[in-house]
Amino acid sequence: MIQSATASAPASIGNVSVGFDVLGQAFDAVRDTITAERVRGSGVTLGSVGGLADALPDSLESNTALAAAGAVLSAARAPFAVRISIHKGVPISAGMGGSAASAVAAAAAVNALLDTPFAVEDLLPFALRGEAVSADPPPWDNVMASLHGGLVIAARLDPALIRRLPAPQGVVAILLHPDVRIETRAARGILKPSVPLHTAVEHARRISAFTLGCATNDFDLVRAGFEDILIEPQRRYLLPELPAVKKAAMEAGALGCSFSGSGPSVFAWALVGDADAVEAAMTGAFRQARRQARAYRAPLDSAGVRIEQRAEAAA
Amino acid sequence: MIQSATASAPASIGNVSVGFDVLGQAFDAVRDTITAERVRGSGVTLGSVGGLADALPDSLESNTALAAAGAVLSAARAPFAVRISIHKGVPISAGMGGSAASAVAAAAAVNALLDTPFAVEDLLPFALRGEAVSADPPPWDNVMASLHGGLVIAARLDPALIRRLPAPQGVVAILLHPDVRIETRAARGILKPSVPLHTAVEHARRISAFTLGCATNDFDLVRAGFEDILIEPQRRYLLPELPAVKKAAMEAGALGCSFSGSGPSVFAWALVGDADAVEAAMTGAFRQARRQARAYRAPLDSAGVRIEQRAEAAA
Repeated sequence: MIQSATASAPASIGNVSVGFDVLGQAFDAVRDTITAERVRGSGVTLGSVGGLADALPDSLESNTALAAAGAVLSAARAPFAVRISIHKGVPISAGMGGSAASAVAAAAAVNALLDTPFAVEDLLPFALRGEAVSADPPPWDNVMASLHGGLVIAARLDPALIRRLPAPQGVVAILLHPDVRIETRAARGILKPSVPLHTAVEHARRISAFTLGCATNDFDLVRAGFEDILIEPQRRYLLPELPAVKKAAMEAGALGCSFSGSGPSVFAWALVGDADAVEAAMTGAFRQARRQARAYRAPLDSAGVRIEQRAEAAA
Repeated sequence: MIQSATASAPASIGNVSVGFDVLGQAFDAVRDTITAERVRGSGVTLGSVGGLADALPDSLESNTALAAAGAVLSAARAPFAVRISIHKGVPISAGMGGSAASAVAAAAAVNALLDTPFAVEDLLPFALRGEAVSADPPPWDNVMASLHGGLVIAARLDPALIRRLPAPQGVVAILLHPDVRIETRAARGILKPSVPLHTAVEHARRISAFTLGCATNDFDLVRAGFEDILIEPQRRYLLPELPAVKKAAMEAGALGCSFSGSGPSVFAWALVGDADAVEAAMTGAFRQARRQARAYRAPLDSAGVRIEQRAEAAA
């Protein structure tokens, strides 16, 4: 019998620019780590909290990890309670998929305690229950990327059809997290309910080109498809320096650059050989705008969730 | 010196369901064949007309083949005139890309007369000038498919970036042409100028899934992405029996079914082994609606334009 299990899940880049609510990308520069312990009673309680957070809400309604843990416990009709300890490695409210990482890691940690665990891919709905604490209905992009790793498409929602895209070779993602706060709810709230047909068609052209570019390792297609014309223009004002940062990234050779999720973090894709120059250019543009920004970097084929440790009960 | 040249170009399936104004597919069940002859003087004149047409307009403003021929002649500053003879193999006003086939074949035939011909892919703008006779601005889908062959994406319009998608293995396209007339102009005119954001996102999800499915030979993805939720619902009423024909095709095992271009023809993709059943089911559904429909079939990797014959001037 497993007494406690520790799982970690990576940060993620929601939307991957052109893929609003469709594409997500694991970003294994930082991870959230969750330990689940069997305890007496029923339900889910919060244990220790550490890393980038000193304290977190302790109810299922307001803590993504606890909500995801509770969803797994209920679905499995587990005859025990769990205590969830959280080590935040993913910055909070950064647009780096922190709530998804916690939800995914919590679901996986609790799953590892079960006598008959679910398959990893079947943890999606439980992790989404956690993500719903931050945004309801929860977008899938961060959750599926954090779970599966790599570059992921939600090809169909019901029934779920999720696939990993072949990630282009020799490309890394660079992410800059500026010291600005943008609430996901607010960022979604400003979106207009309708778009010109022309924009919808051009957006479709871009995501199709981008998808084909990734699948066939064709950088001309990746570049042609990268730009988000559907959502980014509506959110641009949330980060006034975005145009300057993008311009700097593109001039330094990036394949593309956009918000990570709904921001405030900004990410770029670059060939490995251009990555240092792109990161320096983006950092410089933020500095010029008198904005502090921390840089992260991870490969496109970042790992998804994994079990870090299992401890058996003493006999 | 080449005195006359004959080129042929295939029919095509515009949009390929989910790819409105983005994807096109050559459909080499029927072809238009154009002969261009050097004659004295300047400009373009109409020679003989045959095949499925007895007569065609004889001005550059109203004949796609002549317009495309004229565009090539002008661009090349050719010191001669051409006479264009047209053999229509592609039914007219069928939604089978007949005007594009004539434009592409005419551009290629005239090109073959030039001392320094253009590369085949560089004929696109000239063929588009021909297609503009039918719809201005001309959609690219039929023209690029007829030119390049296979399944084609217009990944970027300016500067043009066109790629052939890897076509899924073992799939054929079945097309039924019913005896109804739908004008392309009218079919475009009814489209609403804006769409719900939700629809734009779900459309993007589908074209991305479809593109990845084609590129990776994943039929689950092709099926998940095939449906056109952006345009078809707005045009469905143009062919009241469309839902019944689609249902019959899908129940017989089709991967998907939709209008070819703006209709009235309806096409389906099916695995080779299911093709007879799908064709029979679609034909049956048209018959039930007391509508005559002619069936055509062609592989996904249909050939594009080609030179059929060249004749040198007598010495």
